Amino acid sequence: MATWALGIDLGGTNIKIAAISESEGILFEETQPTDTATGPEGVVRQLAFMADAIYQRAAETLDTGLFAGVGLGAPGAVDVVKGTLSCAPNLPGWQQSHALRDQLRLRLEEAHGLATTVIIENDANAAAYGEAIFGGGNAFRDFMLVTLGTGVGGGIILDRKLYRGPSGTAGEIGFMIIDFEGESVHAGIRGTIEGMIGKERIVELACSEALGAHRSPRLAELCSLDFSRLSPRHLEKAAREGDAAALRTWERIGSILGVGLANVTALMDIRKFVIGGGIAAAGELIFEPAMMQLHRSTLPSMHDGLEIVPARLGNKAGIYGAAALCFASGKPVASDA
Amino acid sequence: MATWALGIDLGGTNIKIAAISESEGILFEETQPTDTATGPEGVVRQLAFMADAIYQRAAETLDTGLFAGVGLGAPGAVDVVKGTLSCAPNLPGWQQSHALRDQLRLRLEEAHGLATTVIIENDANAAAYGEAIFGGGNAFRDFMLVTLGTGVGGGIILDRKLYRGPSGTAGEIGFMIIDFEGESVHAGIRGTIEGMIGKERIVELACSEALGAHRSPRLAELCSLDFSRLSPRHLEKAAREGDAAALRTWERIGSILGVGLANVTALMDIRKFVIGGGIAAAGELIFEPAMMQLHRSTLPSMHDGLEIVPARLGNKAGIYGAAALCFASGKPVASDA
Repeated sequence: MATWALGIDLGGTNIKIAAISESEGILFEETQPTDTATGPEGVVRQLAFMADAIYQRAAETLDTGLFAGVGLGAPGAVDVVKGTLSCAPNLPGWQQSHALRDQLRLRLEEAHGLATTVIIENDANAAAYGEAIFGGGNAFRDFMLVTLGTGVGGGIILDRKLYRGPSGTAGEIGFMIIDFEGESVHAGIRGTIEGMIGKERIVELACSEALGAHRSPRLAELCSLDFSRLSPRHLEKAAREGDAAALRTWERIGSILGVGLANVTALMDIRKFVIGGGIAAAGELIFEPAMMQLHRSTLPSMHDGLEIVPARLGNKAGIYGAAALCFASGKPVASDA
Repeated sequence: MATWALGIDLGGTNIKIAAISESEGILFEETQPTDTATGPEGVVRQLAFMADAIYQRAAETLDTGLFAGVGLGAPGAVDVVKGTLSCAPNLPGWQQSHALRDQLRLRLEEAHGLATTVIIENDANAAAYGEAIFGGGNAFRDFMLVTLGTGVGGGIILDRKLYRGPSGTAGEIGFMIIDFEGESVHAGIRGTIEGMIGKERIVELACSEALGAHRSPRLAELCSLDFSRLSPRHLEKAAREGDAAALRTWERIGSILGVGLANVTALMDIRKFVIGGGIAAAGELIFEPAMMQLHRSTLPSMHDGLEIVPARLGNKAGIYGAAALCFASGKPVASDA
């Protein structure tokens, strides 16, 4: 008899949802574009509709299984005690705090007759918890998940539990400053990691390498001579073919990441890093320079046990983690709970 | 009937020891130059001798009190489970790991007939715990103590307990990198906070301000025209008199500190900072620019509840904290314990 739950990843572009078994992983999954046109109310309606549909489908198959509830990772400031979401820049109408958890629970019960526990969590935290339970952090008692994508985000696991911090905003490694008098300014802050290796900035870096002293005919060819169309995938392909400009760009990205990881080690004594997000598909092109920089940027007394490994769940870490929060419900999953 | 303990602060220069009552604070205290000539053995002998002397003196006065044990803060890597100290750069002969706790306990028992619990802790952690229980962090559930002195150190309190990190080295804010391509290199690492506002560097900063575009006759006068003798106290005095070069130096120090605190807020969601150490005597000369920078360097969603307050126990935080660890013994004092 399998314990199972629904895991939801609420994004500004898509909603991903899956029925996940504690022992077997994903049973069914579905993705829909997020209906942001009508604000929070429309999103809650859509979430409930999708959850009910996949619940019915899974329940027919697993009618003897124990259903643990609905877990939801959301992009913004989540108050896990109150069940609210606020400051979600990619969800129109969600600047103010909304009682997302209770609204979803009520709607599931009243419109669909599904009375169940609903748990919400910040999406980066959900992803970190997913990697901790089902993915690349499974072997580590303490680690930080860093996601490299459009932005740079993170989630922290201490003693196999989520570390949320006193107000629930911990893990914002993208806003760590490593070049406080540097040129880059992002979200009003100078010299942050996201401002230096967020996706847009990576493309800019590659263009300046390709057009500068290390001209790269190969990169020009890959983007059909239109550098505005250059993507991290082009950059990865060129680097694997030995293109100097592309290699230098990845080295730069890895080094900057490594400085950030060194700061995490100095401050929190965390020595295991799980790296996810679309940009991390470049793998050792980033990990090798990051590891070298991590060693250079920490004291020898902090070198024992340093490790950088790839995330294993890709863009499914959030749904895995959201479901895992339901499996753990009742057990302590956050060190500050 | 008072509960009391001995708190010891083992430094490379001095050993401070005090008999401390849980309700009344310091009862007796003593300071001696650390006898580093004969290595670990001599230090253990000296510690036991000093501890026994102050124990006898306090026990005569407090003969009905409950004695909770001996707490010791030590400058290096402390393994609190094994009771060992290693990597203590200011204690000659202490590069290797020594069983400091058990050696001190044995010596107290065998040479002085005092059988008691001995607890050891890293000195910065002990100071943070002292401020948490008896000092400037008393009102805060979560905070970071940052000490500005010869070096820059720190200790982290989460949920009123010490956060040591997985290997016990957490809190090294002095080795946080905020200027990864900058000029300063300290302990082999480029752009660390300690490399930019450690005591020596502050004096260099002041000299370059005083000799540069913002010439300062007042600073020259205070150090009798010999800039090699310029001290943070001179710099404080000149700033309070309105000297522009001195004010700019403190502003720079405060800004750099503020960037470091912003990184702590982004990563750990800690928003309360207690600032101690000799340099922190400059008070608002540092705190005001640090607070302004902390706001500039964090997202508006992280601004709620930001506070920077002075430490209250001065150089006695370590002995207070070491004794407080004995009072808490048996209760959880570390989140990773």
